[in-house]
Amino acid sequence: MTEAAGPATASTAGIIAIGSEMLGPLRQDTNSLWLSARLEELGIPVVRKSVVGDDPALLAEELSFLARSAHYVITTGGLGPTADDVTVAAVAAWLGAPLRRDEVFLEKMRERFARRGFEMPACNAKQADFIVGATLLENPKGTAPGFWAVREGVEVVILPGVPSEMREIMESSVLPVLRERAGGVVGRRRVLRIAGMGESAVEELVAPVYAKWKDDPVTILASPGEVQLHLAVRGEPAAADARLAAMEADFRAVLGARIFGEDAEDLARVVGRLLRDGRKTLALAESCTGGMVASLVTDVPGSSEYFQGALVTYANAAKEDLLGVESAVLREAGAVSDRTALAMARGAQARFDADVAVSVTGIAGPDGGSAEKPVGTVYFGLADRDGATLAKKRLFIGDRAVIRRAASLQALELLRRHLVGEQA
Amino acid sequence: MTEAAGPATASTAGIIAIGSEMLGPLRQDTNSLWLSARLEELGIPVVRKSVVGDDPALLAEELSFLARSAHYVITTGGLGPTADDVTVAAVAAWLGAPLRRDEVFLEKMRERFARRGFEMPACNAKQADFIVGATLLENPKGTAPGFWAVREGVEVVILPGVPSEMREIMESSVLPVLRERAGGVVGRRRVLRIAGMGESAVEELVAPVYAKWKDDPVTILASPGEVQLHLAVRGEPAAADARLAAMEADFRAVLGARIFGEDAEDLARVVGRLLRDGRKTLALAESCTGGMVASLVTDVPGSSEYFQGALVTYANAAKEDLLGVESAVLREAGAVSDRTALAMARGAQARFDADVAVSVTGIAGPDGGSAEKPVGTVYFGLADRDGATLAKKRLFIGDRAVIRRAASLQALELLRRHLVGEQA
Repeated sequence: MTEAAGPATASTAGIIAIGSEMLGPLRQDTNSLWLSARLEELGIPVVRKSVVGDDPALLAEELSFLARSAHYVITTGGLGPTADDVTVAAVAAWLGAPLRRDEVFLEKMRERFARRGFEMPACNAKQADFIVGATLLENPKGTAPGFWAVREGVEVVILPGVPSEMREIMESSVLPVLRERAGGVVGRRRVLRIAGMGESAVEELVAPVYAKWKDDPVTILASPGEVQLHLAVRGEPAAADARLAAMEADFRAVLGARIFGEDAEDLARVVGRLLRDGRKTLALAESCTGGMVASLVTDVPGSSEYFQGALVTYANAAKEDLLGVESAVLREAGAVSDRTALAMARGAQARFDADVAVSVTGIAGPDGGSAEKPVGTVYFGLADRDGATLAKKRLFIGDRAVIRRAASLQALELLRRHLVGEQA
Repeated sequence: MTEAAGPATASTAGIIAIGSEMLGPLRQDTNSLWLSARLEELGIPVVRKSVVGDDPALLAEELSFLARSAHYVITTGGLGPTADDVTVAAVAAWLGAPLRRDEVFLEKMRERFARRGFEMPACNAKQADFIVGATLLENPKGTAPGFWAVREGVEVVILPGVPSEMREIMESSVLPVLRERAGGVVGRRRVLRIAGMGESAVEELVAPVYAKWKDDPVTILASPGEVQLHLAVRGEPAAADARLAAMEADFRAVLGARIFGEDAEDLARVVGRLLRDGRKTLALAESCTGGMVASLVTDVPGSSEYFQGALVTYANAAKEDLLGVESAVLREAGAVSDRTALAMARGAQARFDADVAVSVTGIAGPDGGSAEKPVGTVYFGLADRDGATLAKKRLFIGDRAVIRRAASLQALELLRRHLVGEQA
């Protein structure tokens, strides 16, 4: 890290994902997507990405090759305790630096295992082998630390392959340094997120704004149940911020309350914030989504403040016995109907004594569809403590996983619009 | 293609995905996964994969680099009509071969546009530029053809980036040639999957088997709650099958019932099959996993045959009112305890009238931990209709998402071992 790149230098980066499994058909490197986004924000374009197996000689060749076109070479993976984890030793050899076993770190590792009631396996000891001359990057989320070293002006950052650990080390130890170096030109990005609408419906609404900002890259990305607009600009910080703000304002003018959140803010977090701010509690009743809505809600740290619980009633008997849906409703309207959805929401509200309850019942497929109610038909219900109710029907296209995911997000979007006082 | 590799040659492959968009955060190369699978079947391992932008100089460097370690270099992308599609010209320059505009092909392209009522844009003409000396690979699904060329014994196969076109050309023109060359040699793969154990614990058990098969690549892969062993062999079909079977038998001999499934068979499917075969129904009671176990169970098509439902009881009041956990148990032992886990399982079994019920209660974090019960402490309970119960405690290391995922899989593994009559 002695050779700091000045702000004027147009730095470039290369990323190497290390692991033989990512050369096969079953595993994909995804860390590089997140890394690209963070580097892009700092105006550091990624010029090459590669995947190489757990082989010291091939890794050394890869490092030499990337070092020819990139100022920063970032590696992920191969820091584990097993015999095929060779990154640290291979990078040290490439740097011409020795390894030193850190006894203090080793003792800490042993204590960590002991606290969990285990003896540390012997193979773990190599995670205490540090590269002499490299900066140690602490790993608050795992065992293996990262390293930051320099060879002939090229900076090599070595990170674990576990995504949460890789991100944590980047956020706490690497990005702050790069941010300070970037000084002048920056990239700015804003993601506007929409649920409960299809991609073409969003595209029709934003077409005029799209045309107005045609010189700046706007990307529309669809996934089951969500559409994202990615706005990106580059320039001096003040100018970039101003242009991004103007673009965002134009898109918000046509999309309004359809935007549930921005950037990393997911729908469950937004709903959680609205519930917390409004001091409201939530209960759920799920059929076809089978617990996925509850799982999304409880992904959010602190959700126990507002989330009471859920009844996942897959069997009709459970809908009757546990949610109090009348057998006449199930018989006359069917389990997949607005009447059942409303009765499920009312039942969950009462059983959990919650301020608001949302229900989902539908046909996720592949079986169970009919001409009248094809696979993908889903009903949603909402009931609050004051007796207000609403129901909604949607038809989703896709396989079982797509339908379940889209329906889960639609359930949360129904709740969000209710909480902000907008019609879903 | 003059220099055919004989069946005895251990050929290797490298894959280059060409396209600047795949260096950003939004697009991922996926063609290489399909290509890896096809090549592996022919006993041609992929030794490097890379992504490079639409830049002739960088692409030439990439080709030279991959040609050092791979006998086949396969490129995808950059064959389109726009200015940033540079693959054909760049590869021709790298080969030292001229381009020749094919007038017959050009006329066919013009006719194709005319049939759709358009005039061909001028930029499309470059798609009729053929590399002199290279074999043309016809593209039945699109405009741009592929090419197959040789430089110093390295064979370069140039394919479009559109997945359907890439696959079609591989299937119709490339794989038949490689299959014939491979003669007998094929690749075979088996994935053995284990839940409820850590990576180091698995590694210690299999170390002797690992050593015995050290000439065949075995990879150990860990993700939250699951460890996978990937066995891969190459050889004549019968010999490869036999060696893979012998390897698998050795690993199974030490791991036994700890292996829950193989290849694409996930734990929820295995549990589902066991429940269906045993004509048993299942109910769940979840606290810290918040519906994730139910969501995994209902991911499986047809799960309504055996899954009754789940009670997600986040609040203590819900544990008492809906699951019948006695307030004395919650007060004395706490919500995160073996007594509460057992009471939750018994409650779910009774409420849903299920043959077997599993419960999870723990501290997913980031808050809520204590010295006695740190974040990651999770208790599991199981109760069946005959009154049999069991409880288990585990301590998971990681962030909230990791702990929830690992705990969800542990709950299913507890159930699986109960169903197969093994101790968890």
